[in-house]
Amino acid sequence: MSTPSFEPVGDAVEALKATFRRHASGVAILTTVDAEGQPVAFTATSVTSLGTNPPLVSFNVARGSSSWPAISEATHVALHTLGTDNLDLAKKMSQDHTQRFVDTDWESGPQGLPILAGVTSVLVLRIRQVVEIEANAVLIADVVDGLIGAEQRPLLYFKRDYYTAGDL
Amino acid sequence: MSTPSFEPVGDAVEALKATFRRHASGVAILTTVDAEGQPVAFTATSVTSLGTNPPLVSFNVARGSSSWPAISEATHVALHTLGTDNLDLAKKMSQDHTQRFVDTDWESGPQGLPILAGVTSVLVLRIRQVVEIEANAVLIADVVDGLIGAEQRPLLYFKRDYYTAGDL
Repeated sequence: MSTPSFEPVGDAVEALKATFRRHASGVAILTTVDAEGQPVAFTATSVTSLGTNPPLVSFNVARGSSSWPAISEATHVALHTLGTDNLDLAKKMSQDHTQRFVDTDWESGPQGLPILAGVTSVLVLRIRQVVEIEANAVLIADVVDGLIGAEQRPLLYFKRDYYTAGDL
Repeated sequence: MSTPSFEPVGDAVEALKATFRRHASGVAILTTVDAEGQPVAFTATSVTSLGTNPPLVSFNVARGSSSWPAISEATHVALHTLGTDNLDLAKKMSQDHTQRFVDTDWESGPQGLPILAGVTSVLVLRIRQVVEIEANAVLIADVVDGLIGAEQRPLLYFKRDYYTAGDL
């Protein structure tokens, strides 16, 4: 391809990686409970709205992740949006899964879902559809309830590091 | 629900809206050609990776949008990631659909896809699966090729306005 000012990659995996190094994402945490009633959480950058009529969201989960057994069986999950005050929480929920609720401020909310304190917003979601696709899954969920927290500057993930929204 | 420091919303649509006012997203443009061979483009904030083995991405489209007839028939689409130099392009591709390719710098690339000049990266995608869900659709696509542009600060969408990544 001869498009000026572009460098051909020639490898689809490298192209994907290079592209997503150029694309920033908001950071969210999803929580649920496993079959034993234990809280499960993970950090996600794939959360997006799927329209308001009816209110729906989607997010992606790696089927090899520690959270997948619980998520794949869950009827409900809680989606937490994060601000810059939640940086440590975002990191914790993306690291060793056995430590995610150790010294974490949370309580049990609607549907028994773990609700994390101090985040900017929580949506209570009912899973509607799970689309398994290779090693991942796209989950589509109905919004059934919500809790609004204090406003903060939003937390972003970009080039393997955390940022907030900055003026152009 | 009694969680301290949260305000219950009591309405799922309002909860969704309030939540996504608190969540920032990267900005991308998707392009394809319609049945008459005319270029079609739209701005999206729902682009996310679905793993690298094999390389897959997903994005959401409103089925009532001007781009849907072309997207729903397309075998391939081009995903463009944007930087702050592409602000005017992002706005143009989210406004009047009849004007999107007027005075726009683009050329025909792989699979005949419209490739927009000056963006940070382009992925050539082959549509694998379309999950229709109420008024929207989740599209899942294989990455087949890529073109890398010059690095820029990433373009973000937050609270109905554009930003870039800023330090915490």
